Amino acid sequence: MRLNPHIKKMQQKYLFSLIESKERKMRAKNPHALIANLGIGDVILPLAPTIARSIQNAIQEMTIAGQMKGYGPSEGYLFLREAIAQQSYKGLSIASDEIFISEGANCDMTSLPELFSNRCKIGIIDPTYPAYLSSITLSGKKSKVTLIPCLEENHFVPFPPKEHLDIVYLCSPNNPTGIAMSRENLRKWVEYAHREKAILLLDNAYEAFITSPDVPRSIYEIDGAKEVAIESRSFSKSAGFTGLRCAYLVIPRAILKNKLRDMWEKRQSIKSNGVSYPIQRGAEAALSAEGIFETQQQIVYYLHQAKLLRQELLKLGFSCFGGQDSPYIWWKTPKGEGSWEFFQKILEKNHLISTPGSGFGIYGEGYVRLSAFTTQDQTELALAQIKSISK
Amino acid sequence: MRLNPHIKKMQQKYLFSLIESKERKMRAKNPHALIANLGIGDVILPLAPTIARSIQNAIQEMTIAGQMKGYGPSEGYLFLREAIAQQSYKGLSIASDEIFISEGANCDMTSLPELFSNRCKIGIIDPTYPAYLSSITLSGKKSKVTLIPCLEENHFVPFPPKEHLDIVYLCSPNNPTGIAMSRENLRKWVEYAHREKAILLLDNAYEAFITSPDVPRSIYEIDGAKEVAIESRSFSKSAGFTGLRCAYLVIPRAILKNKLRDMWEKRQSIKSNGVSYPIQRGAEAALSAEGIFETQQQIVYYLHQAKLLRQELLKLGFSCFGGQDSPYIWWKTPKGEGSWEFFQKILEKNHLISTPGSGFGIYGEGYVRLSAFTTQDQTELALAQIKSISK
Repeated sequence: MRLNPHIKKMQQKYLFSLIESKERKMRAKNPHALIANLGIGDVILPLAPTIARSIQNAIQEMTIAGQMKGYGPSEGYLFLREAIAQQSYKGLSIASDEIFISEGANCDMTSLPELFSNRCKIGIIDPTYPAYLSSITLSGKKSKVTLIPCLEENHFVPFPPKEHLDIVYLCSPNNPTGIAMSRENLRKWVEYAHREKAILLLDNAYEAFITSPDVPRSIYEIDGAKEVAIESRSFSKSAGFTGLRCAYLVIPRAILKNKLRDMWEKRQSIKSNGVSYPIQRGAEAALSAEGIFETQQQIVYYLHQAKLLRQELLKLGFSCFGGQDSPYIWWKTPKGEGSWEFFQKILEKNHLISTPGSGFGIYGEGYVRLSAFTTQDQTELALAQIKSISK
Repeated sequence: MRLNPHIKKMQQKYLFSLIESKERKMRAKNPHALIANLGIGDVILPLAPTIARSIQNAIQEMTIAGQMKGYGPSEGYLFLREAIAQQSYKGLSIASDEIFISEGANCDMTSLPELFSNRCKIGIIDPTYPAYLSSITLSGKKSKVTLIPCLEENHFVPFPPKEHLDIVYLCSPNNPTGIAMSRENLRKWVEYAHREKAILLLDNAYEAFITSPDVPRSIYEIDGAKEVAIESRSFSKSAGFTGLRCAYLVIPRAILKNKLRDMWEKRQSIKSNGVSYPIQRGAEAALSAEGIFETQQQIVYYLHQAKLLRQELLKLGFSCFGGQDSPYIWWKTPKGEGSWEFFQKILEKNHLISTPGSGFGIYGEGYVRLSAFTTQDQTELALAQIKSISK
């Protein structure tokens, strides 16, 4: 049987499964340990009431004769695409037919390689969300990949390389570093893309966490970006949808004279039957005035946890970054310890779960990521545990 | 820019978009026409109350502190995989870890080619659901495809070819013909797969409509199928989930000594973050005693509409097939007219919307499909319109 030969080349085990198995082992040894879990970046606050009500109403609607909703449009319902165009891209002139609803940014970002030929040269920032590289490996294009490092000396932002690339994966605010690209930095990438006739694929899933004035909320705030950039966004982190599944991709018509947008539309019409109707109603509610008010409170709450963690780490003399435009803190291991080594040490000795930075790429080695998707109680527990870490 | 060269080769317009545009044109000319739409195969009866209640409760749960559900397992929640193993595969010894939940059979069937190498020889029955061939075209493997005809002289079931194939797409009960493969026919395919070391990909989305005693509900009722067959099923048609999105794939461990199952698990962990939690609770409810009672009534209702349509066509002297194990009727055009020609004629003259058979493959030419996903009122309207068709 002739199988895809590239699957073998992928990471043996998914990062968070590996962390969970190490947690289980530790719990088996210390059944009474109080563990603070700042590992996986997943929302924890309850679903906002406006969103919940809207989903429930949509379900109710479907129980009424003549109001059943069957197959929706594969690109998503117009009511949601219009709400996004008007609310999330206010003033940026993104049209509803440049927006494609999907069940997750993960799925969008990992399916985009299908639009490009096998000969494309691909740039991926490093460290970053590992699924980009894994999906490229799966599609057999790994040999075409150039890593673009995000290093401390560059404040963890990526700079365009001298060499030619056809497509470039960017993530801002970046997961795991928690660092967002400034207006100036994004402008350099847009210029690079115009010069090299490259396409930028920007994962903007953490946009809701941006607080710095020099960080654009969208790449389309940069002149010329509409000709070269695809932007991915999600309701996962902005509105607590990780368990509900709804995201979207913006593919402006100006890229390659409609070509990419039209290719994606065709791809979606074949491979997707759209996103659950009630979930799209929930996403629409997240963009209403009440929805924004409720979810904004959650973002402020998470950012507050990030601030508490960051302050404590700095006060204790550790080096750490991020947490201002993102729920993630990028913690440099003391004494140059390896990511997994430090992860294991603070898990066993201090009962604190982090995520090893090397799980996000080779340039993540020497760091761990802390997630501020946590409750006040968990933060306090974590702060006490951090204090007990020997430097 | 180097784009995927295969996208161009795909069908220019999605079949049902084309039908809709023809319907719009006709409505513009005849704004007061009463049109009976037996075109797209989409559920129409309201969502079953047990399913609706269960989804609403799951949403309520997510609004309670500490009960929020974030990322679920990419393979689906165990509660749903166990319900499927116990209820849908009762007596067939399918384990919960051989079941993978997804947002649609469409997505599963069109993503499966990723598991196989570019050198695989692929068989696809014809006519059938067009997305299989489109997704293979998109992945650049079209030159490896052999069509396996489902012809009237073989009662529209496909027979294994003499030549070697590595993977074979089957659909039973087949969309659009409405004909299901018998135990004997499926056994021939399982034998073929063992002999040729081939893998069968069976789309079994219409399983709930099977009424003939010689038609197995699952391919795993056939001895030896677990070593060679992947089965795809869906809640779309069995429980009215086309607008909610939930399906599953069964990949038995016995295929290639776990290899295919493990590859798919890895693929899913990279490309999917699982299906919406409340929707999975809804699917679980569809498998409860009350859920089965309520959805079974809907199936019986649709099959009754199919019977009325079939009887009338036969009474009027038309040739038609299917509709006994499926909601679809395969209607042979009178006087050998082309599919689109007949479609257009009965749309314009009789205000009846069908689906041209040639949209499902070259061997679908000379037929149209009628969908019995319709209400009693619509059926009566359609029956009156059918009577007015000149043979």
